[in-house]
Amino acid sequence: MSSSAISPKIAALRELMLQNKIDAWIIPSTDPHKSEYVAAHWEAREWISGFDGSAGTVVITKDHAGLWTDVRYFLQAEQQLAGTEMELHRMKMQTAAEHLEWISLTLPSGSVLGIDGNLFGPSELAQMEKIMSPAGIKISYKLDLIPLVWKDRPELPLDPIFEHDTKYSGKTRAEKLDIVRKLMLARQADYHLINTLDNIAWLYNLRGRDVECNPVFIAYTVISKNDATLFIDERKVPAEVRSNLAKDGIAIKPYTEIDSFLATLPANSSVWIDPAVTSLKQADLLDGHTMILADTATKKLKAIKNPVEIAHLRKCMEKDGIALIRAFRWLEQSLAEGQTPTESEFAGQLMHSRSLQAGYFGESFYPIVGYNSNGAIIHYRPADEGSAQIKPEGVLLVDSGGQYTDGTTDITRTIQLGNASAEVKTAYTLVLKGHISLARAVFIAGTNGMQLDILARQHLWQHHMNYGHGTGHGVGFFLNVHEPPQGFVAVLGERGTTAHEVGMLTSNEPGYYANGSFGIRIENLVVGAEAGESEYGQFLKFETVTLFPIDTTLIDMNLMEQGDIAWLNAYHQEVFERLAPQISQEEYSWLKDKCQSI
Amino acid sequence: MSSSAISPKIAALRELMLQNKIDAWIIPSTDPHKSEYVAAHWEAREWISGFDGSAGTVVITKDHAGLWTDVRYFLQAEQQLAGTEMELHRMKMQTAAEHLEWISLTLPSGSVLGIDGNLFGPSELAQMEKIMSPAGIKISYKLDLIPLVWKDRPELPLDPIFEHDTKYSGKTRAEKLDIVRKLMLARQADYHLINTLDNIAWLYNLRGRDVECNPVFIAYTVISKNDATLFIDERKVPAEVRSNLAKDGIAIKPYTEIDSFLATLPANSSVWIDPAVTSLKQADLLDGHTMILADTATKKLKAIKNPVEIAHLRKCMEKDGIALIRAFRWLEQSLAEGQTPTESEFAGQLMHSRSLQAGYFGESFYPIVGYNSNGAIIHYRPADEGSAQIKPEGVLLVDSGGQYTDGTTDITRTIQLGNASAEVKTAYTLVLKGHISLARAVFIAGTNGMQLDILARQHLWQHHMNYGHGTGHGVGFFLNVHEPPQGFVAVLGERGTTAHEVGMLTSNEPGYYANGSFGIRIENLVVGAEAGESEYGQFLKFETVTLFPIDTTLIDMNLMEQGDIAWLNAYHQEVFERLAPQISQEEYSWLKDKCQSI
Repeated sequence: MSSSAISPKIAALRELMLQNKIDAWIIPSTDPHKSEYVAAHWEAREWISGFDGSAGTVVITKDHAGLWTDVRYFLQAEQQLAGTEMELHRMKMQTAAEHLEWISLTLPSGSVLGIDGNLFGPSELAQMEKIMSPAGIKISYKLDLIPLVWKDRPELPLDPIFEHDTKYSGKTRAEKLDIVRKLMLARQADYHLINTLDNIAWLYNLRGRDVECNPVFIAYTVISKNDATLFIDERKVPAEVRSNLAKDGIAIKPYTEIDSFLATLPANSSVWIDPAVTSLKQADLLDGHTMILADTATKKLKAIKNPVEIAHLRKCMEKDGIALIRAFRWLEQSLAEGQTPTESEFAGQLMHSRSLQAGYFGESFYPIVGYNSNGAIIHYRPADEGSAQIKPEGVLLVDSGGQYTDGTTDITRTIQLGNASAEVKTAYTLVLKGHISLARAVFIAGTNGMQLDILARQHLWQHHMNYGHGTGHGVGFFLNVHEPPQGFVAVLGERGTTAHEVGMLTSNEPGYYANGSFGIRIENLVVGAEAGESEYGQFLKFETVTLFPIDTTLIDMNLMEQGDIAWLNAYHQEVFERLAPQISQEEYSWLKDKCQSI
Repeated sequence: MSSSAISPKIAALRELMLQNKIDAWIIPSTDPHKSEYVAAHWEAREWISGFDGSAGTVVITKDHAGLWTDVRYFLQAEQQLAGTEMELHRMKMQTAAEHLEWISLTLPSGSVLGIDGNLFGPSELAQMEKIMSPAGIKISYKLDLIPLVWKDRPELPLDPIFEHDTKYSGKTRAEKLDIVRKLMLARQADYHLINTLDNIAWLYNLRGRDVECNPVFIAYTVISKNDATLFIDERKVPAEVRSNLAKDGIAIKPYTEIDSFLATLPANSSVWIDPAVTSLKQADLLDGHTMILADTATKKLKAIKNPVEIAHLRKCMEKDGIALIRAFRWLEQSLAEGQTPTESEFAGQLMHSRSLQAGYFGESFYPIVGYNSNGAIIHYRPADEGSAQIKPEGVLLVDSGGQYTDGTTDITRTIQLGNASAEVKTAYTLVLKGHISLARAVFIAGTNGMQLDILARQHLWQHHMNYGHGTGHGVGFFLNVHEPPQGFVAVLGERGTTAHEVGMLTSNEPGYYANGSFGIRIENLVVGAEAGESEYGQFLKFETVTLFPIDTTLIDMNLMEQGDIAWLNAYHQEVFERLAPQISQEEYSWLKDKCQSI
């Protein structure tokens, strides 16, 4: 995006800031539902900056326009901000609020910081006030400037919602509502407000198409002891779905009526809200009620996949693995024939191959196909036009996933195309050893993701190497590919401090990135499972559910220990046994070769 | 201790509780200085219960007397409470306040819980109120009942304090005070109150004999911009020390004057207190001042040993290792001669052997010598009379340490006496592998003890085994053998969340305990050291400083991997090279045999 495309937007915002006596304006990446990925209507940060990575915050002052993002996006942001007035601020810590420090140090005392009260919650305001108050900076959150400057803003989407069959979800929405109401009773809550789109979709066994790659729909819901209300643009609800919902005691109201509904809840009622995702505006509307502050009731229920979901997921993984066999064979054959397909063409091939599988709904995120140095850009997305040509030398990092009605997949493989260096092989083997250490872990109940994360990093650390992202995130079931609360990460926070439990689905994806040279990542999804019980308590393990060969030609066998080798051979044996009966003769030979023991 | 020795004390306390309308009284293990180990004057919990483990809380109500302790002390408490009316409550979590839950569920609404405001701080009161308030229980903390019932209470000790030479400490007290005052300036603190005995001893390069095994003295200190006051019984301060302190601008005031001193600080002054160790009484006295709440200034300074201290510690470890060679040879010879020394006799031998070394001051804790099933009692202390006889069969767990003017040691070895079972060897090898995994770890700066702890447990967990204590604690330098803040532990809290830094001294002591059968623990001390720097940042490692052979006859070689074996052989080579030149011909042969490569 060129400089001239951005500056008028910033100038218009500055004009409005001046009129409203606001000295700094923050544009985060989220929406009023605290979504990680948002509908185009809420992509204000991308609109004003041109940076389309998933994480970043823009701050505009009268003489500075800055984008704060973390190491995963440094290269991408450098490229996308090049030639614009927007300056890149490289964050030291992925989770820190370094832009707030910057504002507190830059703005003079008496300044006003403006934010949209729909996009920030009370605890975020408190954190801001803690930083701004000593600097004499006031915070204004009642006025949203973005609608006033964003003239060609996309409308909210109108795609119809649809049922996710109970044969996949394993529980009816009546059963799920019943569990939620039991939890409400235990907390003495009269109402429970759910803001987050994936929780609403999960609770009601409904899906939509409002956010790219995330099969959710824009809505709010409020559950009471006897009824429930879904706030959604009514044009999106097919008559049959409306009638089904009515049978389960769920009324439909317009999306925009959530505010007035909250404002008119009975005065002496108690409302359960999730403080992490409730907006300042909502908190103001609910002021005066007894507030029960706790995680959204469905968050943990959703994270723990039930046996029906897990059984479907295992079948889904077979389909996904077979689609990948076809895409990777296509790439190998193209290269063998002397062609040099672009990264984007291979991404298209991946999507095409998945789209032929039963129950395919779409991608779970846009494929990351990074050839050699592009592999070092952690969330690289090849451009539709002009992406790098893949040649039979070096390595290719491929991170992709599908949305199927019977599961969400997310897999990364790094493959050798030819003549990989010793440096690449060392890095690859250390990443693989980390992947295997985590995959093989047995751990006592209560162990969290911060404890387990080190198992994946320990081998790289021995060589003073590391990677600038978490080792894993929760994954939804035909839902968001990034699903809280659990994960593997070296940071104190929800993802690090949540204990892993039986049934949780999480990615295991250590990596290594040599800037300007190559990137390595090896990712499978794992499900928490019982490992056994002893006098010390319940022990858990992970069952790897992703099924696709891991490139063995990049392994430095000098670094592999017996346990590593045994795990990899057993994994390849399972991949072969599960996929081989379902593929063609040529594919069978290809797979057999890839799954050979080392 | 017999039942009849305890009951009159409880009866007297109940009588006083009745008179003062108090329905439950809590007796913790600590003193007004938040010490882990306390002078006899403050051992009220042991006085009333007979239980002398280091951790436990007594709660007395009109019809119940209970002791809450954790898994480390279950066996010991069972033995010591046997035949008394005091009931053992086995805590599920070492750090939980389960006695508070019990009180809130047991006492009727309107009851009063009494505590001594000298022994609890504001955050502990807040935690209690959070639990008690919903149950309608009030908390009284202004009245201390213990002095009224404990008639033969020991006086506070009068042993003289003495200088710890700068040649050991590496920094003069003027230099240390200077650093503290710089930190005070940065926090805009006019005064800094230090309550904790080890911090006072470290800051002033002074030591004492007031607490068994901990070379500290009972005192408070308040530092201001220009002067400092040490509150201490003046009879304990030799004239020369007093004169030296005066030269450094440190005045002496009576110990009991701390309260009036705090009460008369200038009204508009700011006072830095450590909220974790400030008492309710002190908080009340300081009410109205600007309070700066932060860790005691010296806590981290003390934890990070300087190069002079580390150089001394390395020499100290040689002396300690040589003392252990002599004690363990004595044991082997005694058994070979057909004798069966008791655990207590061997503990005596350990102390005797250490006491012959230069700079010996005393034990850093009373030796744990646990023969076979006694080894499973985690903090076992053999009785002076009638402890078990050691025979040439099974295993012996020996955990001991010395206080020397040039360092504090803490080492555990488990040795085979004969015919160890396969079960013992498996457990021993898994514990050893955990010890080695932690000892070999390389980690990025910022990695904390909760992340590293899993490295020591992972091998046991594979076999559904575990141990009910942390993997390691900080260690002082000629100071307390348990020294915050860092350590290795699977619990969110200071010890788990403090990042390890270069110079920190920590124990590495995984274990395994088969109740009624045997106990295993292997402990060395490690110092944080630089491992190298890369584009990812600073990497750290641990240098093992303890020097004594690890029994190789208990190893199941089938479980050992190459890296394990290489570490153990290199360790034994270092032990041999460092100790061999300093011992007799017979000792040399013995050590050479123990240090053979596997």
